[in-house]
Amino acid sequence: MKSEKISELTTNRLSVYLRCLNELSAANINTISSQELADQFNLNSAQIRKDLGYFGEFGVRGVGYFVDDLREHITKILGLDKPHRVAIVGAGRLGEALANYKGFSRSNFTVAALFDNDRAKIGKRIGPDRVIVHDARKIERVISEEQIDVAVIAVPARAAQRVLNQVMTAGIKAVLNFAPAALTARLGVKVKTVDLTTSLESLSYFLSQPERSLVTNGRRRAPLQIADGLDELELKH
Amino acid sequence: MKSEKISELTTNRLSVYLRCLNELSAANINTISSQELADQFNLNSAQIRKDLGYFGEFGVRGVGYFVDDLREHITKILGLDKPHRVAIVGAGRLGEALANYKGFSRSNFTVAALFDNDRAKIGKRIGPDRVIVHDARKIERVISEEQIDVAVIAVPARAAQRVLNQVMTAGIKAVLNFAPAALTARLGVKVKTVDLTTSLESLSYFLSQPERSLVTNGRRRAPLQIADGLDELELKH
Repeated sequence: MKSEKISELTTNRLSVYLRCLNELSAANINTISSQELADQFNLNSAQIRKDLGYFGEFGVRGVGYFVDDLREHITKILGLDKPHRVAIVGAGRLGEALANYKGFSRSNFTVAALFDNDRAKIGKRIGPDRVIVHDARKIERVISEEQIDVAVIAVPARAAQRVLNQVMTAGIKAVLNFAPAALTARLGVKVKTVDLTTSLESLSYFLSQPERSLVTNGRRRAPLQIADGLDELELKH
Repeated sequence: MKSEKISELTTNRLSVYLRCLNELSAANINTISSQELADQFNLNSAQIRKDLGYFGEFGVRGVGYFVDDLREHITKILGLDKPHRVAIVGAGRLGEALANYKGFSRSNFTVAALFDNDRAKIGKRIGPDRVIVHDARKIERVISEEQIDVAVIAVPARAAQRVLNQVMTAGIKAVLNFAPAALTARLGVKVKTVDLTTSLESLSYFLSQPERSLVTNGRRRAPLQIADGLDELELKH
């Protein structure tokens, strides 16, 4: 595995392929070619072959991919065969929405703790798993005790860096940040920021174009966000 | 303006530049070179010049960019000088969190209506602007009366396509989708999906790499999500 060459765009696309394969598996489809996969989910067959090529030989000539085999391979590549334990810092509306978000468990993530500094919230239990809201001052201890490896930052922008520092001190290496702030992480810590402003401003740009020049490529299916990026990469090549 | 060539990655970066310029302006900095801008915000100066070059000549040799001038230009390019009116469909935890999200107004978006089909929620007022929750059956009428031009889908995946169809019928051309579903939009309608699964699985991949090979480029600042994509594009060139 040439892991030093794997860009995040590749792993993002693997994540999309995995969801497509899950749909195919649910529809009892056993094999699929890269071309069929591309046609069915609005992807690019050469890109699929290239992305998978980084990790081995998965296709069989004349057959294509075995759906369940490939699902299993991608699951392993993305590390989704091992469970992750999540702490959500900030038990406001967003934190509560996230604690109830079913997507975590679909990707083998379990929300194991919430944190807040509001006394009215501490001790409450939230979400389908009745996860407890801890005092934010106990972040380090709880992260260690609960063997948490992923932190979600759902606090206001002004508090986000402080929270990031706290969770890094507690040994967290992977952070999903919802605060609209550019955060400074130490080396070896990955922060993914979910940036709604950019999405909104992209929609605004689209609406400001009288001819809708960005979507006249004749496709009727709205691609996943990640497929958008894929299209544009191809245009550049 | 060669608008047919402007990719969404370019407009995404313009959105990032705008936030950087806002910070500079708030710090009373009047001029900045593309190199200083790049250094200060972990961007690429050649990319900045190229992106801005699509829209005109903004820099002055020996001076750089006038911060407030460039802010104004980018604001216009992104269509942010004109207000947008937003409807949020789904007044659950996520919809409520979004109704309270301050980022909308920072980008000149106003939340003007919410919709739900839960009788217990209809008629409630939510968020700082006390926006009313309407019966989802009234989507078409309210969107027209309130002159709404952007819809946010905050309903479960199984209901998302139905909601998209409703808002498209009401004439909406720009949609921000939070449901984990690949949606089919008609031509001329832009759907941006905020995809938490891909972000989570990217973190999982990172954690599964023993050497943390993805972040050994010696930079200490966690780039914005969009700057991530920018890095990878550069690697490809």
